[in-house]
Amino acid sequence: MAIQQKLSLMIPGPTPVPEKVLEALARHPIGHRSKDFQDLVEITTKNLKWLHQTENDVLTITGSGTAAMEAGIISTLSKGDKVICGENGKFGQRWVKVAKEFGLEVIKIDAEWGTPLNPDNFKKILEKDHKKEIKAVILTHSETSTGVINDLKMISSHIRNHNKALSIIDCVTSLGACNVPIDEWELDIVASGSQKGYMIPPGLSFVSVSKKAWQASEKSNLPKFYLNLQSYKKSLSSNSNPYTPAVNLVFALDESLKMMKDEGLVKIFQRHQRHKLAVSEAAKTLNLKLFADEKNLSPSVTAIQTGEIDAENFRKIIKNKYDILLAGGQDHLKGKIFRVGHLGYVNDRDIISVIAAIGNTLVEQNKISTERVGEALKIASYHLKVS
Amino acid sequence: MAIQQKLSLMIPGPTPVPEKVLEALARHPIGHRSKDFQDLVEITTKNLKWLHQTENDVLTITGSGTAAMEAGIISTLSKGDKVICGENGKFGQRWVKVAKEFGLEVIKIDAEWGTPLNPDNFKKILEKDHKKEIKAVILTHSETSTGVINDLKMISSHIRNHNKALSIIDCVTSLGACNVPIDEWELDIVASGSQKGYMIPPGLSFVSVSKKAWQASEKSNLPKFYLNLQSYKKSLSSNSNPYTPAVNLVFALDESLKMMKDEGLVKIFQRHQRHKLAVSEAAKTLNLKLFADEKNLSPSVTAIQTGEIDAENFRKIIKNKYDILLAGGQDHLKGKIFRVGHLGYVNDRDIISVIAAIGNTLVEQNKISTERVGEALKIASYHLKVS
Repeated sequence: MAIQQKLSLMIPGPTPVPEKVLEALARHPIGHRSKDFQDLVEITTKNLKWLHQTENDVLTITGSGTAAMEAGIISTLSKGDKVICGENGKFGQRWVKVAKEFGLEVIKIDAEWGTPLNPDNFKKILEKDHKKEIKAVILTHSETSTGVINDLKMISSHIRNHNKALSIIDCVTSLGACNVPIDEWELDIVASGSQKGYMIPPGLSFVSVSKKAWQASEKSNLPKFYLNLQSYKKSLSSNSNPYTPAVNLVFALDESLKMMKDEGLVKIFQRHQRHKLAVSEAAKTLNLKLFADEKNLSPSVTAIQTGEIDAENFRKIIKNKYDILLAGGQDHLKGKIFRVGHLGYVNDRDIISVIAAIGNTLVEQNKISTERVGEALKIASYHLKVS
Repeated sequence: MAIQQKLSLMIPGPTPVPEKVLEALARHPIGHRSKDFQDLVEITTKNLKWLHQTENDVLTITGSGTAAMEAGIISTLSKGDKVICGENGKFGQRWVKVAKEFGLEVIKIDAEWGTPLNPDNFKKILEKDHKKEIKAVILTHSETSTGVINDLKMISSHIRNHNKALSIIDCVTSLGACNVPIDEWELDIVASGSQKGYMIPPGLSFVSVSKKAWQASEKSNLPKFYLNLQSYKKSLSSNSNPYTPAVNLVFALDESLKMMKDEGLVKIFQRHQRHKLAVSEAAKTLNLKLFADEKNLSPSVTAIQTGEIDAENFRKIIKNKYDILLAGGQDHLKGKIFRVGHLGYVNDRDIISVIAAIGNTLVEQNKISTERVGEALKIASYHLKVS
C-alpha cells in the first residue's frame, strides 16, 4: 500500500515526524480529566510559552490552523468592527472570508501573490485612524501559498503605534521556523498548527493571547462555542481542556517540544535559514525562477516557477521516481509552480536529495546540462555549511 | 512516568485502543492533498456509512464531539429559529447553551438527571405546532453524564410526524454501541466522536447529514467557517477536506472501521448489551444503587451511586490499587457517583476485573461480605454468556 512507502514529505505540512514523536503518538491514551493528563498540559503549556517567546497564555485547540485563526478573530471582535486584512496569498484571502462571514468591516491591504505586503500601507491607514475605529489587523506572516514572508516586525510596530488595534497573526508556517518574538513585538493573537514547525502530525493548533486581547474578548459579541478562547483559558487555569482534546497528539507535542528545547531556538532558526538559502540558490542555478520576491523568502517553503513545464506533471515524476512529495500551486498557480517545504524535522540530506531529484529530472527533460546539477549541489552545500 | 502504566480505561472516553490501531496511528504522515490520502478518505467514508447504517453523507471533522454537534446546529439553523432541546444531563445542558449562544429560541424539555426524557412531551409540543415554527429537535441519545439512554426511536417518530423539524442528535456514546439505524429512523443530523465506540483516540468527530438537513443548510444564516458543514460536503465530493485533517487519526480510523466490520454490527451491539447487564446487575448485587433509571440504561456507561462513601476517594483507590480508571460524577454529582465505561474495545475480562476490583474495595471498607463479591461475579458471568 502506497501509504507505507518510504515517502519524504517536502510539503509545507504535514511535515516529517521524528520516530520518537511517532512512538509517543502510539501510546495508549489516558483520561483527559486525569492528574496524569493535567501534568502533561502543565509541561506542554510551559514549553509552548518558551517556543512562543511569550508570557502570554498559549492555548491548545483540537483543530487545524484555520480553527485557531478563526478562534482568535471571533473571540476578540464584535459585529461591525472595522479590521484591516493583509492579503497576498491564499491564506490572507481566507482571513478576509472569515472576517466577512462574521460581519466585520474589512479594509483590505493587498499585494500581488509572490510579493510582500507593504508595511507603509498599514502605517498610512493606521495613522489616519484618529477615532481609533480599527479594532484589529489580521495578516499572515509566512504565506504558505506563495513562499513569501511578510515584514511582521515592521507592520507590528505600526500596529503598536496605533495603540488600539489588536494584531491577529497567522504564524502557521513561521512559528518554530524563524524568529517570532511575541512579547518583544507585542503581538496579541498568534495562531499556529501542529503539522508545521512543531514536527507532529496535524490535529492540534495553538493560539497565544495577550492581556490586551483578553480585555477585548470580554466585550466580544460574535457567537461562538467550540472556538471560544475564554473557555480554553478558564480550563487552562486547572491545566485542563473545555472539550475532549486529541490526547495522543498531546503526547507527541510533549516529545517534540522537548526535542526543540534540546536543539534551541537559535539553532532551529539557523537551520531553516540555511535550508531556505540552499533550496532557493540551487533552484536559480538550475535555471528555475523563484516565485516569491527574493528579499522576502519564507523560511519554510520555497515556491518555484516551472515556466513551460507543467508543474503538476513534474511533481508526479519527483514523487514516483524519488518518493519525494512536493506541493503544487494553489488556485491560479496550479500547474505553474511547485513548492518545496523545508519546515520542521528536515535535515541537510533532505535538502540535497530534493535538489538532486529536481536537477536530474530537468536533465532528463533536456532542460539543463548535468554541469548545472553539479553546480546547484555545490552552491547548496555551501549554504548548508554551519558557520 | 504514570502515563506509561498498564492502565485500563473504563471511562466513557477516551476508550481503550487496539494495538493494531495504535500502530496505524504511528505511521509517518502523508500529504492530505495526495491521491493516497484521497483513497483513504474514500474507504473510511464508505465504512462510516456502513457504521451509521445510512446513505446520508457522513463527514469527518478534526475536533471533539462538541464541535460536531455545534457544526450540525449552526450549519442548518438560522437566527431566531425555534428549537426543542431535550435536557436530562450535562450534555443536554450543553446543547441548550450552544443553541442560545447562536440566538435560537429554545423550548426546553427536561427530566431529572438519571431519568429519561419523556417522548410524550415531545409529541405534545410538536403536535401543537400547527404553524410548523419548530425548526429542530436537539437531544442526546446516551447521556454520558448519567448513564441514561433516551428513547430516540420513539422521539424520532414524533419528529417525523411533525414533518418539518430536523432531528439533531448527539449519539456520541451510542453510535457503535447500540442500534442507531439512521435511515430507518430518518435522523437528520447525528454527531459522534472518535474516542468512543470507534476505538480510536480523541481528535476526530463525525456528522451524518440527511438531504433534508442539506436543504435547510442552504438557508442557514448563522455565521460559521471552520464548522460549516457545507465546506466539508464540497471537499468530500473529491474525497478531500476543507482544512488540514488529523491525518494520523484517519489512518487509525481506517484500521478500527475494518475491525468493526469484521466483528459486525449485531455482535458489537450484543457485546455492549452483555457488558451493560453484567456491570449493572453485579453492581446491584454489591449493594450499590444504580443512578439511572433501570429501564433506560446506556449501553456504554453505568453510573453507580456510592451513598455514604465518597465516590472520588473510591475511584482513587481503584486506580491506585488496580490500575483501572473510572469516571467521576460531573457537577452536582461529583463525589456521589462513579461511572464505569464499557464502551468500545472492551472484553469480558475488563468487565470481570472491574467488578472484582469494586467488590474487593467494598469488602475492605467493611461494606459488604466476601460472599457478595462472589455472587456479583457469578451474576456478571451469567450475563456475559453469549447466547
